[in-house]
Amino acid sequence: MTKVLAICGSLRKASVNRALIRSLPALAPEGMEIVEAPSIDLPLYNFDIQAAGFPDTITALADAVRGAAGVIIVTPEYNYSVPAPLKNAIDWLSRVPNQPFQNKPITLMSAAPGILGGARAQYHLRQIFIFLEGMIVNRPEVMVTMAGTKFEMVDNAPTVLNDQPTKDVIKQNLAALARLIARLG
Amino acid sequence: MTKVLAICGSLRKASVNRALIRSLPALAPEGMEIVEAPSIDLPLYNFDIQAAGFPDTITALADAVRGAAGVIIVTPEYNYSVPAPLKNAIDWLSRVPNQPFQNKPITLMSAAPGILGGARAQYHLRQIFIFLEGMIVNRPEVMVTMAGTKFEMVDNAPTVLNDQPTKDVIKQNLAALARLIARLG
Amino acid sequence: MTKVLAICGSLRKASVNRALIRSLPALAPEGMEIVEAPSIDLPLYNFDIQAAGFPDTITALADAVRGAAGVIIVTPEYNYSVPAPLKNAIDWLSRVPNQPFQNKPITLMSAAPGILGGARAQYHLRQIFIFLEGMIVNRPEVMVTMAGTKFEMVDNAPTVLNDQPTKDVIKQNLAALARLIARLG
Amino acid sequence: MTKVLAICGSLRKASVNRALIRSLPALAPEGMEIVEAPSIDLPLYNFDIQAAGFPDTITALADAVRGAAGVIIVTPEYNYSVPAPLKNAIDWLSRVPNQPFQNKPITLMSAAPGILGGARAQYHLRQIFIFLEGMIVNRPEVMVTMAGTKFEMVDNAPTVLNDQPTKDVIKQNLAALARLIARLG
Repeated sequence: MTKVLAICGSLRKASVNRALIRSLPALAPEGMEIVEAPSIDLPLYNFDIQAAGFPDTITALADAVRGAAGVIIVTPEYNYSVPAPLKNAIDWLSRVPNQPFQNKPITLMSAAPGILGGARAQYHLRQIFIFLEGMIVNRPEVMVTMAGTKFEMVDNAPTVLNDQPTKDVIKQNLAALARLIARLG
Repeated sequence: MTKVLAICGSLRKASVNRALIRSLPALAPEGMEIVEAPSIDLPLYNFDIQAAGFPDTITALADAVRGAAGVIIVTPEYNYSVPAPLKNAIDWLSRVPNQPFQNKPITLMSAAPGILGGARAQYHLRQIFIFLEGMIVNRPEVMVTMAGTKFEMVDNAPTVLNDQPTKDVIKQNLAALARLIARLG
Repeated sequence: MTKVLAICGSLRKASVNRALIRSLPALAPEGMEIVEAPSIDLPLYNFDIQAAGFPDTITALADAVRGAAGVIIVTPEYNYSVPAPLKNAIDWLSRVPNQPFQNKPITLMSAAPGILGGARAQYHLRQIFIFLEGMIVNRPEVMVTMAGTKFEMVDNAPTVLNDQPTKDVIKQNLAALARLIARLG
Repeated sequence: MTKVLAICGSLRKASVNRALIRSLPALAPEGMEIVEAPSIDLPLYNFDIQAAGFPDTITALADAVRGAAGVIIVTPEYNYSVPAPLKNAIDWLSRVPNQPFQNKPITLMSAAPGILGGARAQYHLRQIFIFLEGMIVNRPEVMVTMAGTKFEMVDNAPTVLNDQPTKDVIKQNLAALARLIARLG
């Protein structure tokens, strides 16, 4: 099995992006196992903290990225860019020795209430991963627009994706990730 | 006096960007008073925290932005984008009622060790402020390249800007901010 | 009357963006007159041509921009960025003495067949106008998604906008342009 | 020999970017042959021209890209973005059947008079190549700042690169391109 790590960009319990992650295993190609990453509820990045030693939560997250054949980032967009909790996790991981994203196959997904579906956050992430030397799947892009209407709801919280065209594009995206992993492996 | 609030994008004590902020009052046009913002060492943004009530530190920062005629953001660049602590402060402020950046004149400055001087973080900030409807000074842009060489050092920490061409461009930028405040006032 | 110049980013005769321009006068606030710019079917930018003297078509376009109180750019997106014909017009205008976009109030609109409606072209345009010191309306943004379905068609060519939600957002955008012109005037 | 095609983003005869291309063969790794692409002095993109049949110059350029194992784009920056002549060539190539950039290993270089060395044009190009599914070298990035001072001049025209740190980073970049070609081959 090819192990792939899914990182959620939101800390919110009832996040549609977390619901999107729960929907991925059923859409993955044969041979791909999708595991959710440890929490990104980390201290706010500060060099003075780093100088005193990386917190264990950072080291654990770095190990999880290194131990995976690929990474799926599933994130909302905050203010036309990357949510702070996700940027914070990336800023910490970028400082760890043996930087875990280097040469790592990565795919991006986003779900958002508006008409652009988180696109702007994805393009900022792509620029971030130039520096970190990640290898990002080009297409098809997964931008779940009007996200509030595309998930089953239980007790006002989204549980699982319920929109066939979105499922189809995710299947193609995960297949593209599998091909990129195979090609770069 | 026109009060202008300076926000530092780094939490690090010995930050060159904090040293840059200390260097600004001497370069400001007559009639501009520059005040440093309260700390952005805030909890990591989480809707579930917001739902329980905005922390006092967020409310205080929002009040400081609202009470200023303009804002100066002085920031490093982390991983080709906005540092997490700064993005986190912006993500919080964007949720507060009577969003404080709306129609606010803002200028951007960055200092970084490399050859681009934080340019990439500034362009991401500009995209963020489209959504928040800030009014950003166009030019001259202040990107302090090779920042480590342009500050006086005391005990291995930068104290104050010591580079005449950088001082000149900052003077022009602050004058442009003053003109934008006057024009939009 | 406040004269505003509309520039179409496509050279195609049956362009949906040209149809969008034809739809603007009916949506403009009282007192705003919208005039279509001269053609941007210009020679491809080459410094060696410029050195021999600006072509008359460039000078005429520059005069049209200078003579308007504001500019509306209405454009498709080609390859996730600004169409070459529009970028070419901007590259020429940027070289003309007394650069015509400086301090000019500008608003951006785009229509495209996909789900993002030309958003990526608009963000690239915004970066371009930092250098040219244009003053761009922040919001509401006008991104006409699935453009093929939102225009009346005559002989397989789009004639005029036929979608009420899109008309509403354009009205608000043109009103915001009028306010920006008044504020900066 | 691995054949790699170099495309110059400027039409100007005395372009520093053309001089940069002339400097590349001496810096290429063993086994890499660098060939300059046919001219990008093409008609301005217009769907109505395309509908009448692709001009031969477009077809020839597309064949040259398809026949190469990799592509080097060497470009100035115009108005904080991609020069119109280069965007125009890309817009044409994107419409040709069997789109030539798909899965093609590509590296980006830029030379510019300012302190950012064309960086902004490169990030826009990277976004463009997401759609075209090019595979872009991440790092090291080649941004030749203050380009006017780094070339030998003959009769006021730059002839060849004359700056050792720039030569070193180009060597590393071309080696990275060779590795990407091998890895994706």
